[in-house]
Amino acid sequence: MKVICAQADLAAKLSLLSRAVPSNPTHPVLANVLLIAEADRLGLAVFDLSLGMQIWIPAQAEETGSITLPARFLNDIVSRLPNADVEIVAEELSVTLTCGAGNYQMQGLDAEEFPELPQLDENEPLQVPASVVLEGLQGSLFAASNDESKQVLTGLHFSTKTDSLEFAATDGHRLAIANTWSETLEATPPEVAVTVPAKALRELERMLGRTETDLSMQFDKTQAIFEFVTEQGSARLTSRLLEGQYPAYHQLIPRKFERQLTIERQVLISGLERIGVLAAQKNNVVKLVLDSKLQQLHLSAEAPQLGSGQESLPAQISGDDLEIAFNVKYMVDGLKSMSGSEVQLQLKSATDPAVLSPLAGTKLTYLIMPIQIRN
Amino acid sequence: MKVICAQADLAAKLSLLSRAVPSNPTHPVLANVLLIAEADRLGLAVFDLSLGMQIWIPAQAEETGSITLPARFLNDIVSRLPNADVEIVAEELSVTLTCGAGNYQMQGLDAEEFPELPQLDENEPLQVPASVVLEGLQGSLFAASNDESKQVLTGLHFSTKTDSLEFAATDGHRLAIANTWSETLEATPPEVAVTVPAKALRELERMLGRTETDLSMQFDKTQAIFEFVTEQGSARLTSRLLEGQYPAYHQLIPRKFERQLTIERQVLISGLERIGVLAAQKNNVVKLVLDSKLQQLHLSAEAPQLGSGQESLPAQISGDDLEIAFNVKYMVDGLKSMSGSEVQLQLKSATDPAVLSPLAGTKLTYLIMPIQIRN
Repeated sequence: MKVICAQADLAAKLSLLSRAVPSNPTHPVLANVLLIAEADRLGLAVFDLSLGMQIWIPAQAEETGSITLPARFLNDIVSRLPNADVEIVAEELSVTLTCGAGNYQMQGLDAEEFPELPQLDENEPLQVPASVVLEGLQGSLFAASNDESKQVLTGLHFSTKTDSLEFAATDGHRLAIANTWSETLEATPPEVAVTVPAKALRELERMLGRTETDLSMQFDKTQAIFEFVTEQGSARLTSRLLEGQYPAYHQLIPRKFERQLTIERQVLISGLERIGVLAAQKNNVVKLVLDSKLQQLHLSAEAPQLGSGQESLPAQISGDDLEIAFNVKYMVDGLKSMSGSEVQLQLKSATDPAVLSPLAGTKLTYLIMPIQIRN
Repeated sequence: MKVICAQADLAAKLSLLSRAVPSNPTHPVLANVLLIAEADRLGLAVFDLSLGMQIWIPAQAEETGSITLPARFLNDIVSRLPNADVEIVAEELSVTLTCGAGNYQMQGLDAEEFPELPQLDENEPLQVPASVVLEGLQGSLFAASNDESKQVLTGLHFSTKTDSLEFAATDGHRLAIANTWSETLEATPPEVAVTVPAKALRELERMLGRTETDLSMQFDKTQAIFEFVTEQGSARLTSRLLEGQYPAYHQLIPRKFERQLTIERQVLISGLERIGVLAAQKNNVVKLVLDSKLQQLHLSAEAPQLGSGQESLPAQISGDDLEIAFNVKYMVDGLKSMSGSEVQLQLKSATDPAVLSPLAGTKLTYLIMPIQIRN
């Protein structure tokens, strides 16, 4: 194998891929990146047997071939090379990398040892602009659980509806649903209802970056495959699906609300972040008081032994006054996942879940459970 | 006490000061910041009994007075307040802070409990432009030891010479000396030879920022005091001196060198950083080979089980060829503390200390011990 590519391309993609390389691989070859040199492109792939990623970059191969190299080590060196051509030559398993005035020797493992990334040939892919998928992920992914023992809750539930693509995630305390749509979708998209590990989708978000291309999505009973092509090359991400029944989350959303509040999103975030300094001292509890007479939302928290704080923010409030408490972190997470200048908070009672949503933009439904407070 | 100041001023200074607040104070009041409201200014001070800092900001006091408040907590809140006026009112020890739509209550401790920062009235201060001191600190401070058990080596040795101010620091493996001078200094400045804790001087660096003012420095047998005045107010840093004899470091510098190498500073840093990836796998040892025939400096390192790397960099070399090894981190630290495009490396033998210095700018002498290698 003998191939030449640009350091900037190689460094950018190795940096993306090396994030997915397992720290304690079950087999040594899984700590490596697979390099495949074809006539005019170089393929780079990593795979931890659940999450796989493959990216192609432009290259000139004098001699095609393949080899695997230690992923993190290669990334550490390539990221520091000057912005010039990089030549990679493999003779059997001995690899020499040359760039500028430097040359580096390393020992590879046979490409044959590297497990093949899953393929799904039979299924008709769903073609959606990457921006539509990114909107869906941005509005929901943050609410997935990071606790590995919570199984399906560490995933994001993706499903097709008659009029939207639905992205939902919950960790048991809050639920985020994003509904997106694209003109390019068929009137009735094929039925899909799968739970994809949040970890894989966070890598997909990074891989897509600001790409303005179409994303092809394929699913079967055990795998999800995402693919896209850009001017520089193509990229593919495969992930095992999470098994088990995802919670019937639509049942959790109250049908009717007695109270409604509209407020500037940024004003509410800033107020909550200040009150959050006090709330952080005691379970992150922030108290909200809806004052319809003054048309103000009062936020308050107490920090034992330190002090207390209140913020009074202008808001449009309808319905009876109410005192309710939330985890301040959950509120801020939801507000930050939204865009647009105003948000709406719909409330039923001090013990029923509340729903936060932006007034404009992507349809987002963020449900949070209140915290019981005693006065 | 009732005082009004700008949030931006208060936030910037509290952020600087709260770095010096001890995590486990010997007395509760040392976790607090002392606020002193005078007619047209507000003083903020912290003190851990070794390092003390006091900064004055513009303010309007309706009622003068003083109080102490939890430093980190106050900083956390003030940093998140909107860019507007902050009003601080103390009634006995109950303090209310108001800004925009928010108000915060906290309990203070009596200002009387706060220990007084040291004063040195008798000594004639040394007046030097802040930029001159910053140059001296930048060229030496990084070489001080971070190991508290190393006593005087955790400090920086400051001394006046007939033609310069000398800043020196060493951790036993390398020694950095910066000699600076200012036209404003008297021909023969008063004799000073003190060891100031590096920690205090790092805070002084931050406090000075890009200030273009004169710094007044005062020393006695146990204390150092630095003071300066800017348009916004004045600031003072006091520090206990380190006791004990500082090493006679001038004796360590070889008088004569047999070999000399001149090289682009940035080229050498980049090469060392790449080779450093390999060196990091085994004691950070990088091998240098001076090749006077090719006029090249060869860098190399080996990473057991991973591979090896070489860089060949253009350099002007005089004297016989030499093979020598250094700790790559020490070399990079020294090179990064310098400015200017070219540096000079002076060498005697593979076992004698080498001296690195910039060709232009502040006079810096960076001495590093080689590592013994076996071929």
